[in-house]
Amino acid sequence: MKLNIACQLNYESQENVPLVLMLRPQSGSGQQVIEEQFLLSPNITFTEYSDIYGNLCQRIHSPIGNLTITTTALVETSDTIDVNFRANFIPVENLPAHTLIYLLPSRYCESDKFSFMAADITQNLPLGYQQVEAIRRWVRSNVVYEYGYSSSSSSACDINQSRIGVCRDFSHLCIALCRGINIPARMVVGYLYNLEPMDLHAWFEVYLENQWFTFDATQEHPKGNRVVLAYGRDASDVAFATQFGNIMLCDMQVSVTAAEIR
Amino acid sequence: MKLNIACQLNYESQENVPLVLMLRPQSGSGQQVIEEQFLLSPNITFTEYSDIYGNLCQRIHSPIGNLTITTTALVETSDTIDVNFRANFIPVENLPAHTLIYLLPSRYCESDKFSFMAADITQNLPLGYQQVEAIRRWVRSNVVYEYGYSSSSSSACDINQSRIGVCRDFSHLCIALCRGINIPARMVVGYLYNLEPMDLHAWFEVYLENQWFTFDATQEHPKGNRVVLAYGRDASDVAFATQFGNIMLCDMQVSVTAAEIR
Amino acid sequence: MKLNIACQLNYESQENVPLVLMLRPQSGSGQQVIEEQFLLSPNITFTEYSDIYGNLCQRIHSPIGNLTITTTALVETSDTIDVNFRANFIPVENLPAHTLIYLLPSRYCESDKFSFMAADITQNLPLGYQQVEAIRRWVRSNVVYEYGYSSSSSSACDINQSRIGVCRDFSHLCIALCRGINIPARMVVGYLYNLEPMDLHAWFEVYLENQWFTFDATQEHPKGNRVVLAYGRDASDVAFATQFGNIMLCDMQVSVTAAEIR
Amino acid sequence: MKLNIACQLNYESQENVPLVLMLRPQSGSGQQVIEEQFLLSPNITFTEYSDIYGNLCQRIHSPIGNLTITTTALVETSDTIDVNFRANFIPVENLPAHTLIYLLPSRYCESDKFSFMAADITQNLPLGYQQVEAIRRWVRSNVVYEYGYSSSSSSACDINQSRIGVCRDFSHLCIALCRGINIPARMVVGYLYNLEPMDLHAWFEVYLENQWFTFDATQEHPKGNRVVLAYGRDASDVAFATQFGNIMLCDMQVSVTAAEIR
Repeated sequence: MKLNIACQLNYESQENVPLVLMLRPQSGSGQQVIEEQFLLSPNITFTEYSDIYGNLCQRIHSPIGNLTITTTALVETSDTIDVNFRANFIPVENLPAHTLIYLLPSRYCESDKFSFMAADITQNLPLGYQQVEAIRRWVRSNVVYEYGYSSSSSSACDINQSRIGVCRDFSHLCIALCRGINIPARMVVGYLYNLEPMDLHAWFEVYLENQWFTFDATQEHPKGNRVVLAYGRDASDVAFATQFGNIMLCDMQVSVTAAEIR
Repeated sequence: MKLNIACQLNYESQENVPLVLMLRPQSGSGQQVIEEQFLLSPNITFTEYSDIYGNLCQRIHSPIGNLTITTTALVETSDTIDVNFRANFIPVENLPAHTLIYLLPSRYCESDKFSFMAADITQNLPLGYQQVEAIRRWVRSNVVYEYGYSSSSSSACDINQSRIGVCRDFSHLCIALCRGINIPARMVVGYLYNLEPMDLHAWFEVYLENQWFTFDATQEHPKGNRVVLAYGRDASDVAFATQFGNIMLCDMQVSVTAAEIR
Repeated sequence: MKLNIACQLNYESQENVPLVLMLRPQSGSGQQVIEEQFLLSPNITFTEYSDIYGNLCQRIHSPIGNLTITTTALVETSDTIDVNFRANFIPVENLPAHTLIYLLPSRYCESDKFSFMAADITQNLPLGYQQVEAIRRWVRSNVVYEYGYSSSSSSACDINQSRIGVCRDFSHLCIALCRGINIPARMVVGYLYNLEPMDLHAWFEVYLENQWFTFDATQEHPKGNRVVLAYGRDASDVAFATQFGNIMLCDMQVSVTAAEIR
Repeated sequence: MKLNIACQLNYESQENVPLVLMLRPQSGSGQQVIEEQFLLSPNITFTEYSDIYGNLCQRIHSPIGNLTITTTALVETSDTIDVNFRANFIPVENLPAHTLIYLLPSRYCESDKFSFMAADITQNLPLGYQQVEAIRRWVRSNVVYEYGYSSSSSSACDINQSRIGVCRDFSHLCIALCRGINIPARMVVGYLYNLEPMDLHAWFEVYLENQWFTFDATQEHPKGNRVVLAYGRDASDVAFATQFGNIMLCDMQVSVTAAEIR
């Protein structure tokens, strides 16, 4: 399905603050960008670079006062996600080199502490997809989805203790558990069609049988029509905006709509 | 100046032909892409990748019949090019590693055969910018700009013999001469505001005193407001369309206009 | 000074365990590898790849029973480290893109929690080198160097609480504090001449005034003659051996000696 | 088989000349470097970098007078090359992106001029391996192997005219022909066990059915036990030494011997 996505951010600042944004989708696996727009008001300059994961990043230096960032895009996406209950676990020695970094612990996914728990959740299951699905179901059943209880510094360990959080936290806990049983897992942020309430979203992917599979612990049956903004080891790598100073995000509007046929 | 650029290509084919395009500008040194659009009619799928030079490439498989490719963008560019007659030659041993490939001969720039000629054109000049400017002036004075005499297989050697060609050929000869005296030189293709007649354009850049400088042998005084589509060693690397089979480009429309202030 | 370095690891395992090693130094900033050797006994196969930080990694699959890994190298190093008390802080908006990842929090350096503490330690100091030196001195004065109190899962927060650890922990705490005041900081592992007792070592680097500067909180006056094995965000990225299963490191011998002049 | 390889170069120069070398093998597809040594006499400094193809390059600045470069390595190689007469041609639209650059013409392989000839040589053959083998056999039968008739500026077109050349020229002609029928082809330089007379060697690889296959038009039945030094589009990319000034290679000694079992 072709999706029109849009995100508008309104900032207010009393000082000049450097910002690194990941707000412009790129064509890639499962999505093709047809149109794309990135507007700053006031009309300040920006630069762009690709980070070590290949994400396109925008660097700006906020003005004093108001700053509005508007991004829109028209993107072709897939209506479904790949589901394959028989997708096999790949023994570490056979994993492609580029996936190995997604086995290591990271800031918000202390996977070095989750091996026992992950083995427990997945015991007696065939190795691979069904293990990940069991982890996803476990997190979905045991963590309450609610805003306001976790923060940007909450990690998988924190959430496993509090058992309450949002999409980001659900993903972190799933990722830490997957890595705990040597399945490469990475964080994804982006847009999801029909998300309620509409917002930017976070989910995760795991590497099995020679491809990345999409998983989302916030949905009963994870749906397609996703637009990826960034991939990384966890939220520290894929924040849609990383700010280096005091700047207030006053308002944020996100929309995802089906593009009319033309 | 903010520029609206557009390029429309109409192809006709009796078979399915793979094409690799370099038609979508990216933000980079001296240009920031604000809006961008890539449309195919009929609405076939495409994929994208970055080549070894960092250029964004689009892969498509042409349908039988007609294919229209439409690309547009709004891009912030600089009104002028950097000119510095004192910019120094960098001895090879001090060049950054990433520039060294631009010293080597390539398909259309047989620089291994141009050392003597380049030394002759630049004799008695201070090393650096003034050498390149002398090469640019020499090519401008000694090669006739005219369509229809060179072809896609014409190289610097061919042009040096025939002394007639177009922007692509002017660039190849300049690049071969610059490399002949150990100045890294690369080909650039893109858009140029106020080019007459309007078309996609080719020019070259050289690396001096820690930056790439823009040169253009087709203009008396090279102007700014350029939008880069691709960088490479020569036209073989930066063709706006590389086709692998028989497909006919029936029509091509290029436009570059100043964006209204808003 | 030319250094002969050697590291021998003896493993024992009851199963086949995948290992990723970072044990072969590469030529790079401040070091040139002249000779290098990597031996496995029994003579099993290995493969190599470069990770996202550019570190050369060796992948092996341990046999059942004993495994001896022997690495040696002859490396040219610098006798001193660069010290410049006037090296300036680079505002985030001016940092090169490749350094930005070293501002983000990571598994063992929860820098998002260290801004206040870092500001406190460095108050009233000129921005830049002197701030980092103050952090280094603070850690050196307030953390006890002793084996056996920290573990491979100890993070900067843990060490700030316990105030006891080893070179790895000292580095993590310093890195978290530097990032807390927006100075890019990365972990380094390698060899250090005259280290007592001899072992592999960990230290850190910060990016100031357009270069990486070496710092080491375990030494009163940090010395040169270091051979780098790997760079990364923290110990999770630069473990000399990452194992994916049960395998026991029975013995480890490290030596660093001055090469005789020849 | 484990091979001991060695190359010693003796240069003499009246000025300081920058050199870029590709003389140190790296572990990679089909070869594992166990020991490796790079010595310069006099003991001048060098630096290293990876080029855009991933080749490790050494940069030195030659002294006035004599310079001896000695490289040795112990490398595990395969005794055979992969041969598969059923390996399929991959249509361009299905080729991995990283192989596309090896379809383009380059300095010494003007493949844009070889489509007709390549189609002629391979007519009626099944697409893929057998086409390449036919090209290899055609070149082997129609070009005389002899030193002294071609030069470092000879290209595939030149050799197709003169029909006489060395391993480098044989490879260039084969590569140009393969690319002419849309088969990715690249140049390889390195060592070959039992080559007579012993020297550095050049051969080529083509991409079929998801792997690179080794071909060598200088041998009746191409053998294994090859140590790769560099990959590239043609000899311009993979010269074992590229010099930027006047320096004389007075002597060059190459040896490849089977390592004793230990």
